[in-house]
Amino acid sequence: MSPESVTVHGMSTSGNCHKVRLLLEQLGRPYAWIEVDSANGATRTPAYLAKNLNGKVPMLERAGGGVLVESDAILCWLAEGTPMLPADTWQRAQALSWLFFEQYSHEPYIAVARFIRGWTPVDSPRRADLPRLIERGGQALSVMEKHLQRAAWFTGDTYGVADIALFAYTHCAEDGGFDLSAYPRITDWLARVRATPGFVPMPGVSDEVAARLAFSRA
Amino acid sequence: MSPESVTVHGMSTSGNCHKVRLLLEQLGRPYAWIEVDSANGATRTPAYLAKNLNGKVPMLERAGGGVLVESDAILCWLAEGTPMLPADTWQRAQALSWLFFEQYSHEPYIAVARFIRGWTPVDSPRRADLPRLIERGGQALSVMEKHLQRAAWFTGDTYGVADIALFAYTHCAEDGGFDLSAYPRITDWLARVRATPGFVPMPGVSDEVAARLAFSRA
Repeated sequence: MSPESVTVHGMSTSGNCHKVRLLLEQLGRPYAWIEVDSANGATRTPAYLAKNLNGKVPMLERAGGGVLVESDAILCWLAEGTPMLPADTWQRAQALSWLFFEQYSHEPYIAVARFIRGWTPVDSPRRADLPRLIERGGQALSVMEKHLQRAAWFTGDTYGVADIALFAYTHCAEDGGFDLSAYPRITDWLARVRATPGFVPMPGVSDEVAARLAFSRA
Repeated sequence: MSPESVTVHGMSTSGNCHKVRLLLEQLGRPYAWIEVDSANGATRTPAYLAKNLNGKVPMLERAGGGVLVESDAILCWLAEGTPMLPADTWQRAQALSWLFFEQYSHEPYIAVARFIRGWTPVDSPRRADLPRLIERGGQALSVMEKHLQRAAWFTGDTYGVADIALFAYTHCAEDGGFDLSAYPRITDWLARVRATPGFVPMPGVSDEVAARLAFSRA
């Protein structure tokens, strides 16, 4: 039986959305992708909010109409029964632990710093938040670097959902103003992730966003 | 075979920690509790950080020495194989989705507002964050209220881990300055949670914290 095809509503240059694409590609699973411009209000329309009360991407939709939101919950559901999610309950709990770390201690700083530098006006008052985001995001990167002193991956003994989730915004952390050269084990792990079978890179940002990121680096 | 006894390192008046106690009590599972004063640096000692790189509570420790962190990952591991975590993979994914919602869209506003009002000095500059936290936390409560228009619980068809996780800081949201009377379905759901078998309330805060919360309400 071939796996059920699913539809993903997502913004391609969002790390949270790219997680889902990367896993689907690596599982070789059929899917449709509907591009949603979440940076410009497309997730706040009545039609979108009717499906997803919290108005965010990514959103997975099944052929029968069921909807699943929250990127890391989508990863777990898609990975069920595959080597990307450990079957052993303790190993699975450890992978989940890293998924919650990613959403609580990593993404709110590293992804948000990237968003402010790339997707808000260069004179946005939100830029005042950047020093705090850089400090907290740096703490998250330090935790990852220490973990990688004693393990090769974040999903038990092998590559899987927690690596995909943490790769999403770590690999583009420099967009947020983080210096990855200070984290040699993270740099090596990013290379190992890129070398996994079926890996696909996150699409590049628009010229407008690229220009803002260049301004922010200057 | 009786279930393995575990040790929980936690601060009793922390909602994230109380989640774990509530589930253990409702499962009737043996456990030891080590009180950790995380508001005053006890999670930043070298001994604690050696066990938990990210320096947070709660932390679960097995008799054999394995450690699990992140409150919602702990809930999932403890609930495995019980009615508190759906066995059906789609229902389980929906419960996980609410757990990620809780950690990303709810706790960082509702729990943090409570922390600032109760655990930081009354002249703390962090109080300037409160209006933004009230706005964002109110959005999370609205999402919950809308969900409860069409469902009785957050964990599939029955009470379980997602209800425990969301109860933790919703039931004390007024400590953070939220007015729960504006959310009648949430109010009803809180009462249903309190009526579940084996329910234990979160311990009261210290007199010092209670005085700051009273000051904040005035």
